[in-house]
Amino acid sequence: MMQAYLDSGMTGTAVFEFFVRKLPAQRNFLLSAGLAQVMRFLQEARFEPAELEWLRTSGRFSESFVDYLADFRFAGDVHAIPEGTAVFPNEPVLRVTAPLPMAQLLETRLINLLHTSVLVASKAARMVLAAPDKRLVDFGLRRAHGSEAGLLAAHAAYMAGFAGTATVPAAPLWDIPIMGTMAHSFVEAHEDESRAFLDFARSRPQEVVLLIDTYDVRRAARTVVDIAPVLEREGITVKGVRIDSGDLPQLAREVREILDKGGLPHVSVLASGGLDEWKLRDFTDAGAPIDGYGIGTALTTSEDAPALDCAYKLQEYDGRMTRKLSSGKATWPGRKQVWRTYGSDGSIAGDVISLEDDDQPGTPLVEKVMEDGRPLGEVPTLAAARERAAAQLAALPPRLRALEPAEAYPVAVSDLLQRTADEVAREIDRRGHRGEVPAK
Amino acid sequence: MMQAYLDSGMTGTAVFEFFVRKLPAQRNFLLSAGLAQVMRFLQEARFEPAELEWLRTSGRFSESFVDYLADFRFAGDVHAIPEGTAVFPNEPVLRVTAPLPMAQLLETRLINLLHTSVLVASKAARMVLAAPDKRLVDFGLRRAHGSEAGLLAAHAAYMAGFAGTATVPAAPLWDIPIMGTMAHSFVEAHEDESRAFLDFARSRPQEVVLLIDTYDVRRAARTVVDIAPVLEREGITVKGVRIDSGDLPQLAREVREILDKGGLPHVSVLASGGLDEWKLRDFTDAGAPIDGYGIGTALTTSEDAPALDCAYKLQEYDGRMTRKLSSGKATWPGRKQVWRTYGSDGSIAGDVISLEDDDQPGTPLVEKVMEDGRPLGEVPTLAAARERAAAQLAALPPRLRALEPAEAYPVAVSDLLQRTADEVAREIDRRGHRGEVPAK
Repeated sequence: MMQAYLDSGMTGTAVFEFFVRKLPAQRNFLLSAGLAQVMRFLQEARFEPAELEWLRTSGRFSESFVDYLADFRFAGDVHAIPEGTAVFPNEPVLRVTAPLPMAQLLETRLINLLHTSVLVASKAARMVLAAPDKRLVDFGLRRAHGSEAGLLAAHAAYMAGFAGTATVPAAPLWDIPIMGTMAHSFVEAHEDESRAFLDFARSRPQEVVLLIDTYDVRRAARTVVDIAPVLEREGITVKGVRIDSGDLPQLAREVREILDKGGLPHVSVLASGGLDEWKLRDFTDAGAPIDGYGIGTALTTSEDAPALDCAYKLQEYDGRMTRKLSSGKATWPGRKQVWRTYGSDGSIAGDVISLEDDDQPGTPLVEKVMEDGRPLGEVPTLAAARERAAAQLAALPPRLRALEPAEAYPVAVSDLLQRTADEVAREIDRRGHRGEVPAK
Repeated sequence: MMQAYLDSGMTGTAVFEFFVRKLPAQRNFLLSAGLAQVMRFLQEARFEPAELEWLRTSGRFSESFVDYLADFRFAGDVHAIPEGTAVFPNEPVLRVTAPLPMAQLLETRLINLLHTSVLVASKAARMVLAAPDKRLVDFGLRRAHGSEAGLLAAHAAYMAGFAGTATVPAAPLWDIPIMGTMAHSFVEAHEDESRAFLDFARSRPQEVVLLIDTYDVRRAARTVVDIAPVLEREGITVKGVRIDSGDLPQLAREVREILDKGGLPHVSVLASGGLDEWKLRDFTDAGAPIDGYGIGTALTTSEDAPALDCAYKLQEYDGRMTRKLSSGKATWPGRKQVWRTYGSDGSIAGDVISLEDDDQPGTPLVEKVMEDGRPLGEVPTLAAARERAAAQLAALPPRLRALEPAEAYPVAVSDLLQRTADEVAREIDRRGHRGEVPAK
């Protein structure tokens, strides 16, 4: 396709926008995410010599096309809705303005990065809302789909309000707090559970969280009570215990009681094992004495909605607005802006999508973040995105904060955008009816 | 955890097995997959200088532990059920035998690779069964969770019987056929749809498949009839058209008629857009004149079941068999073999899981594939795995080949394994009741 663009000299300026067509039934909002990864990708995107060699010798591509790829550097503009912002269907999360072949080449990877990040950030936000004031930790690398998904998930979850991750490489990359974990195999490898707890505590005295469900939770909790004074005399404090199976609220209550009676009221009770936002809410509602949660699969695979109906679509080419008219997938043409209004209580009240310069009441969400391939000003930090996400979650109307499907947040289309879309459709129809076959 | 193993001198031989605890409700079988990626990972696993430096300066790990990681090379044995084999709950898809810290270090990545590959191969197999004799192509990189997931999916889907992928980097990596695609933006960027078709065909004359649903499918099909003779005179044959939206069987019938009447009976009709195995089966049952399918999101995210309840568990340490007794997650101890029996019609009839040397009737499935960190004999090819998968799908009993949940395939546990498991549980209980606190 790119080769065809180059062959026909179609290198005019193209405008693509990434947006989500509609929310999964189980989501009331999404969080913008993935922009940091996209900006890094755009600055680093290159074809390696081995890749170029393969393309050259595959017999599929012309020499001039491979030469174009060899020189490829992203040199376009990028607009985006900042990470951590609540976003809704049809809102342009990201816009790329660049020569057509350049903007087209990026399509698959931009969708791949943004989709994964928005997906997990939005799932994580539901968990944060379901367990207020609890420490949530991402345990999900193992069942994420490949390694990159696990890293993107660690980033997205932290942005959405998680306290940290067990995915160690996320720490050097983005300075996300990492939380070590202990596996059942560690207990099993020892002949004695108390020996396993002592070994573990002595090797990593900074953060002793003991896994107590390998055999019998109550017995293991009593073992913790037995060994905690031994460790304390060595200057090592047991910080927490973790239960990974069974009736978690009930076990947590019993363990809390065993620990309290054993003089360990400062030891946290953590829970993990097949958790999702619904279970978190149930445990919250039940007042379970659980201080924090490790959350894996449901988070990193966004298990109840593992994909978003999203797209990266051409909205303008060479000064002409474009749109698809495909059944059920028609798009809004042109470069767009989103205007957000707030209620008197500070909660978000409604958005209007307009063409870029068609000012509407409210605050514009789409900002320019890259120009000529370079970041514009400071690249926003993860910490800033995390703060924004916290503020946005706090500003959601109560019905959108609920886990149950709610009445949709109002997103209107400006009159001018509606008229423009109609006009573009009519123009496509007119052109279609010309119907002549152009000669070569 | 590894540091604790090293600190306590727990470097005896450990045996870990990877298995799936139970099937998702929507799966009647799984396909073994991911072994090629695991074997490559095990041969290449190293810590890079920058990673070691971070570990050294993070303040979390001891100098001797980081030195251990600096020298890390996998030197253990690996047993596995070959890729493309139908597998069922509790069957050891992979076994690692290595010093405890070495085998433990691999846990997260092995689960991550095997889980993703088994997940997508098993989903792909359902699609292959639902659309016999159709060409299925993986279109799913964009909505895969990160780039690695997309690559693993291309590999897994091809193994399960897909004809190819649109993920270009899968071709140089594994020699998987790639199928180019044309996007709606290509049509939109041109002022005229027929001009877009001509440009595309002339730039990539080897494989002309035209996307005909950007505006109006029937009109675009008639445009193809108009331009095909023009291209034919230039020596370019239109191979197919693709419909990506709308009522696909109905549109396919109309398009087939337009093409046939227009003298293009050789032009294939392909369909894509939100397809899954259920839609494929409906289209098959309806006799829709569709020759092939592009399948994206449902495949690469395994959308209806995006995770498997799988684990990598310690089954033996230093000659002593181990097991978890956690609620709902108890494991079978020891090094295991799976014995498969076949019915008189050649279909698979039942499996028995036993300890390794406890021979049972049937064919053993678990084979040794690596010794002392090196592949044993020829590394099995993707082509061989693909052949095995085709044979295994053909050997599934009809109820398991159906998309609907079926009566479970019988997987028994040998008497000796059952007695051994009971004995290990009693032994754990005995040790637990000793209850003394070992001194440092």
